[in-house]
Amino acid sequence: MIVVMREGCKKEEVDRVVELVREMNLKDHVIVGTERTVVAVIGDDRYKDRSVLESCPGVDRVVPILAPYKIASRQTHPESTVISLRQGTDAAVGGRKICVIAGPCSVEDRKKYLEIAQVVKELGATALRGGAFKPRTDPYQFQGLGEEGLEILAEAREQTGLPVVTEVMSLEQVLLVAKYADVLQIGTRNMHNFNLLQAVGKTDKPILLKRGWSAKLDEFLLAAEYVIQSGNPNVVLCERGIRTHEEYVRNTLPLAIIPAVKRESHLPIIIDPAHGTGHAYMVPAMCRAAVAAGADGVMVEVHQDPEHALTDGAQSLTPQAFETMMKEMKAVAEAVGREVSGTAVSVK
Amino acid sequence: MIVVMREGCKKEEVDRVVELVREMNLKDHVIVGTERTVVAVIGDDRYKDRSVLESCPGVDRVVPILAPYKIASRQTHPESTVISLRQGTDAAVGGRKICVIAGPCSVEDRKKYLEIAQVVKELGATALRGGAFKPRTDPYQFQGLGEEGLEILAEAREQTGLPVVTEVMSLEQVLLVAKYADVLQIGTRNMHNFNLLQAVGKTDKPILLKRGWSAKLDEFLLAAEYVIQSGNPNVVLCERGIRTHEEYVRNTLPLAIIPAVKRESHLPIIIDPAHGTGHAYMVPAMCRAAVAAGADGVMVEVHQDPEHALTDGAQSLTPQAFETMMKEMKAVAEAVGREVSGTAVSVK
Amino acid sequence: MIVVMREGCKKEEVDRVVELVREMNLKDHVIVGTERTVVAVIGDDRYKDRSVLESCPGVDRVVPILAPYKIASRQTHPESTVISLRQGTDAAVGGRKICVIAGPCSVEDRKKYLEIAQVVKELGATALRGGAFKPRTDPYQFQGLGEEGLEILAEAREQTGLPVVTEVMSLEQVLLVAKYADVLQIGTRNMHNFNLLQAVGKTDKPILLKRGWSAKLDEFLLAAEYVIQSGNPNVVLCERGIRTHEEYVRNTLPLAIIPAVKRESHLPIIIDPAHGTGHAYMVPAMCRAAVAAGADGVMVEVHQDPEHALTDGAQSLTPQAFETMMKEMKAVAEAVGREVSGTAVSVK
Amino acid sequence: MIVVMREGCKKEEVDRVVELVREMNLKDHVIVGTERTVVAVIGDDRYKDRSVLESCPGVDRVVPILAPYKIASRQTHPESTVISLRQGTDAAVGGRKICVIAGPCSVEDRKKYLEIAQVVKELGATALRGGAFKPRTDPYQFQGLGEEGLEILAEAREQTGLPVVTEVMSLEQVLLVAKYADVLQIGTRNMHNFNLLQAVGKTDKPILLKRGWSAKLDEFLLAAEYVIQSGNPNVVLCERGIRTHEEYVRNTLPLAIIPAVKRESHLPIIIDPAHGTGHAYMVPAMCRAAVAAGADGVMVEVHQDPEHALTDGAQSLTPQAFETMMKEMKAVAEAVGREVSGTAVSVK
Repeated sequence: MIVVMREGCKKEEVDRVVELVREMNLKDHVIVGTERTVVAVIGDDRYKDRSVLESCPGVDRVVPILAPYKIASRQTHPESTVISLRQGTDAAVGGRKICVIAGPCSVEDRKKYLEIAQVVKELGATALRGGAFKPRTDPYQFQGLGEEGLEILAEAREQTGLPVVTEVMSLEQVLLVAKYADVLQIGTRNMHNFNLLQAVGKTDKPILLKRGWSAKLDEFLLAAEYVIQSGNPNVVLCERGIRTHEEYVRNTLPLAIIPAVKRESHLPIIIDPAHGTGHAYMVPAMCRAAVAAGADGVMVEVHQDPEHALTDGAQSLTPQAFETMMKEMKAVAEAVGREVSGTAVSVK
Repeated sequence: MIVVMREGCKKEEVDRVVELVREMNLKDHVIVGTERTVVAVIGDDRYKDRSVLESCPGVDRVVPILAPYKIASRQTHPESTVISLRQGTDAAVGGRKICVIAGPCSVEDRKKYLEIAQVVKELGATALRGGAFKPRTDPYQFQGLGEEGLEILAEAREQTGLPVVTEVMSLEQVLLVAKYADVLQIGTRNMHNFNLLQAVGKTDKPILLKRGWSAKLDEFLLAAEYVIQSGNPNVVLCERGIRTHEEYVRNTLPLAIIPAVKRESHLPIIIDPAHGTGHAYMVPAMCRAAVAAGADGVMVEVHQDPEHALTDGAQSLTPQAFETMMKEMKAVAEAVGREVSGTAVSVK
Repeated sequence: MIVVMREGCKKEEVDRVVELVREMNLKDHVIVGTERTVVAVIGDDRYKDRSVLESCPGVDRVVPILAPYKIASRQTHPESTVISLRQGTDAAVGGRKICVIAGPCSVEDRKKYLEIAQVVKELGATALRGGAFKPRTDPYQFQGLGEEGLEILAEAREQTGLPVVTEVMSLEQVLLVAKYADVLQIGTRNMHNFNLLQAVGKTDKPILLKRGWSAKLDEFLLAAEYVIQSGNPNVVLCERGIRTHEEYVRNTLPLAIIPAVKRESHLPIIIDPAHGTGHAYMVPAMCRAAVAAGADGVMVEVHQDPEHALTDGAQSLTPQAFETMMKEMKAVAEAVGREVSGTAVSVK
Repeated sequence: MIVVMREGCKKEEVDRVVELVREMNLKDHVIVGTERTVVAVIGDDRYKDRSVLESCPGVDRVVPILAPYKIASRQTHPESTVISLRQGTDAAVGGRKICVIAGPCSVEDRKKYLEIAQVVKELGATALRGGAFKPRTDPYQFQGLGEEGLEILAEAREQTGLPVVTEVMSLEQVLLVAKYADVLQIGTRNMHNFNLLQAVGKTDKPILLKRGWSAKLDEFLLAAEYVIQSGNPNVVLCERGIRTHEEYVRNTLPLAIIPAVKRESHLPIIIDPAHGTGHAYMVPAMCRAAVAAGADGVMVEVHQDPEHALTDGAQSLTPQAFETMMKEMKAVAEAVGREVSGTAVSVK
């Protein structure tokens, strides 16, 4: 890190910074500029709290030089990581194939779920999604079927052969969800829930980690680092939109995170354009764009009857819209030298 | 809610909306404007999912009319709520007295904590703060002393008579923390952790609920509603800054939320300017401003030796700075017809 | 618009709203809900100031129903507008062909500009860019060559046959710039400069209108409406990134604006990923994504020697990087049924 | 500045950076850390374009060390600047007295303006405000009376003795407005309009410079530097809210900018809570907070009949509300050792 002193700071203030740097077992290097003095700190300072230095008299600010994450960094692991979504299948994310995770926002009903699962499989999905536990901002709304939903997901996997992805919302759900699901999703609201990150880091299931609404890239990669450090190297990053002043979308979907993640980390990244925009009509364009920008997959909501969906109907595609979107996405994938996995068979 | 149809929508599309509104057991009222048709929906639609209507063909958008929260609303409960921080003491928030919650960011060491607790008490604090469990973005940094920290907090309460406020980070900590602390804090990262909100809603301790980094006001009040609805009416709201493009602060502290909360809700609101700005030098000005704007209290970090604080040193006040700030805050409190509670005695 | 009354408002307050609505020559329609009363206002209220109603006692808020723009709306003009960049050439934006506006950020030197103009032409660019007047945040930095720069641009047009796009920064530059350039660019900083919008609206040159850093979509389309209303229907919208809390980019590039603009307006939209991200390494991915999402073109910075560019070197492509990007973009354009215009010939 | 190299960069890449630094006539200082190399650049690099270095292979990012502004900096000018609003009067901003600039948003009518001017004077205002030229997002709304409005302002000054503040929107208005007004206001939309900043910098009138909606603090102070550098040292900064995701306000008012400006610059800063929040009901609380936080003044909208205001009625105070607010603000000013100027006489 670099400690930038205020202009006109006193010699004792610089000395104090140097002393604290040495207390941290780091090396200091003082550079006296024409207007300001900076103290360059040499050594691995990831484990040090830089606010200690920020609070010293005469210090203007402290600029970190090293990225705060290490194992999630491409520097440590130059090859891109490919993550299998379920052992014994070829469903994976991070390789040449673009992965498509599809299904309704939440599991509402056994018969309907099994039906839509079959539909998205035939249209080429790589994996199934569906919430059994739903985090709802509003306590008065549908909160999911719980374990019954997990059983339905498992049954859908049996019938389709597709791995299932579902959210785990709290520590005491981890074992239960891991018993049924193939991939554990950590939702936006939990990206900073470090206890939960560590708990899923102790399972052997791949983790789908959604970015927080206002998380910085460093924080997103650090959340992945929490999981990896707990023993689970299989983290799929998922961008799902950030909060900004924009009002024609529910969230702003920043696709430039795709090249940024590819540069900084070896982990795969997928895009969730349904939550990322809030509007079904924008989903196909954003899926095509994500693939063109280099995303490793997309996650979309498909519902037979969006008008009667219990959650997020406004951002769900009909099977017909999903079919069209898959065709378009395949064409774009080929244009960028990739492939959308699965075999698309038209819905009868 | 008001369903705004797209210009030139078809009659069948309006009919479909009307049909869905009736399925929801709500009344419809179609208004044909010069350019657009809107369907006004009459009845309590808080429990209904408006995205169902948003997904209908011909619908442009759906505008909610009722606030999504109800019990947290001033409409339901016109008088301001005053919350006792500990039975049998006069420490409270929401009345004429401004409450000052002070102490280090985290409990680091028994001796030092007891010492600073005594100092802030003598300088007029209403309650003590200190983290036993610390949510850290970075897995490599100090995570708190855990139960040992809680014991130290309880001991500090014995010595000073001041109630203690500390964070509970996950479901399985609730009972443990409630055993020691007087007030349970829900941190920014957990404002959307609904399971946790419900769990603390089942305790009999007052809850200090911090606003999420990117939460809207409605979502903040809905999070309070989660707690109240679970049986615990004692929720103190706490603003601690939001994420914006500003770079001279760690977060942007939006003090206009004070009059907004006072208008919309009966719950008290306090301000945390340390996290709200990230810089100790801004804390006194923001505390004075909060009091002037009508806040019911402030929460500040005070540390004997900010340079050696294990967490958040850069935003901690020294006891001397805290003393000065208390004097200034008292003057402002009087100017707006309020009072800073506690008895200030200078540190020897 | 819909005037939402506060809960428990008085009858006189509703009456006052009705009276004011009638003073505005609009019709009122009062709907008494179970908890709130709303007054639906019927008629074209675009020309009315809704803050008048917002300031009435008992009013909670006023919700606009009509979009504030009219001539820029797709409703008024269902067919997409195709804009010729220069009469007598086939360079256009808004049709099947994707337009590529390329060149250095600013015109720095005659010889170098003519050289790079030839290079981008050979690689398939549709039009040339280059700033003669540069808005610089910092008064100490290069401000552009002024009229000399315009002459160089005109010479480059003669040599390459490509139309030239350049920024006009203030009223008194309008005639001068219009004398030389084919397309007048209104920069981000001037999107809200209404006098300037009206002035360029009186020229016969197409306008490239960049979105403001924090403009809402409505405001962006209203800025276009200012130009069109002044007599110039040829407005090309350009998204160039917004200010958010993201720190790995200079700005956040919200590509979902592409489907939003296509739905709301008949005007073409292009993307500027160089300013939209601030990093050359992200430009190719964002260009591919923009095309996949349905953009009508891209605007990119190409410089022979980015290290010696006087402005924005960090976001400029080398000719080699531009060549690769053009190939990739063509493939994506074909995948979405479009075409990148121009004939690509490799640089010798 | 500090050039941070990527991990594993090549020696030639570092050499290239060093070479470019020397070409800029600056000194380099290479520091090889355990994981990364950084090149510290010594000398005044304010006039250099750091994007040149950012575009070099092997460079991760460039961190500026010096603030980009110089004459606006407190470092250069340690004493706070006090600015007279009109020669020969004691109306000033930046001293012990808090300045209150009050009046309607725009000048709508001679009789009404003279009346409200008298009212706010009697209630203790320091200066009058009122727009003669109004920047309106919407081309269909009232744009101001133009020169007629300026004449009315001048007449109001004659009658009340209070200096008048009004906005200048474009270059060709500068001389006209300077002929009538005492203080020239640069609006939010023009903070980045550098030509206009330079033009008002050549007048001898004090400038009231509003912060842009998404401007960073550095950019705000650089805009002031543009004016000062053109010859006019009298710049009053004005915070008027930024665009964020918050929805209960029109803009988010970040009062922490007050201590930040006081630390970084010698220029006075005032607050505009009407635009800063968009709601009249929040204005008094935000004025009190601004004064408590150390602001040098406030700017508020007062209108006899907000319901019939042609612009911004929703954020205008009635004379009664203004009177109450002045009393509250005086009390807070005294609590922080300052004084609200003017003599308050109650309205009959």
